[in-house]
Amino acid sequence: MFDKVTLSEKFKLFDDRWSPKIVGELNDSYVKLVKIKGEFVWHHHEAEDELFLVVKGRLTIRLRDRDIHLEEGEFVIVPRGVEHLPVADEEAHVLLLEPKTTLNTGNVTSERTVAELQRL
Amino acid sequence: MFDKVTLSEKFKLFDDRWSPKIVGELNDSYVKLVKIKGEFVWHHHEAEDELFLVVKGRLTIRLRDRDIHLEEGEFVIVPRGVEHLPVADEEAHVLLLEPKTTLNTGNVTSERTVAELQRL
Repeated sequence: MFDKVTLSEKFKLFDDRWSPKIVGELNDSYVKLVKIKGEFVWHHHEAEDELFLVVKGRLTIRLRDRDIHLEEGEFVIVPRGVEHLPVADEEAHVLLLEPKTTLNTGNVTSERTVAELQRL
Repeated sequence: MFDKVTLSEKFKLFDDRWSPKIVGELNDSYVKLVKIKGEFVWHHHEAEDELFLVVKGRLTIRLRDRDIHLEEGEFVIVPRGVEHLPVADEEAHVLLLEPKTTLNTGNVTSERTVAELQRL
């Protein structure tokens, strides 16, 4: 039986960073939550657009030609093929929406790659 | 060139209720914003799961066997085929995520049906 999801409660359930947790699925996509601090790795997704919505804190999405600064209640959709680098000086809580096929590090493999995502 | 979306700013751009506005698209889905007050119509979507995230206010999603009460920062995904009736006593600001094929009133046509959605 499906039920609602309270974002703040879900974020209390984990502390690890850069490890997205699945909190919902619809159609061919997952809703994921992730805690971010520091710098990720430059990557892109060949065939998937990716939505970043800031729930708490601040997040910068660096692109090759500019930076996009996101605060709480702001989102950006990074189109497929566009290289990006998420960065947060302080811990940010972020909701992701992306196809189920999406790997967090996209076209690259690094120590940040998480192949099997936990569900909360 | 894509850019970020500030939810609170987008909600300032319209006053009409029950008329979802497109504020983003990714993969096969639209991100829409809608202002809700009062009662919608019972409907379901044959082939589309639908996400409701409350940005401001409170929203009740009535199902045939129970009610789901949502506050700010809470979402629910109504699976395809499940009849539902959105209700809000006071105006609520809601983010929707659903396939581009989704009609707001699903399997029914009423005065609430909006076939052509505005983009903000």
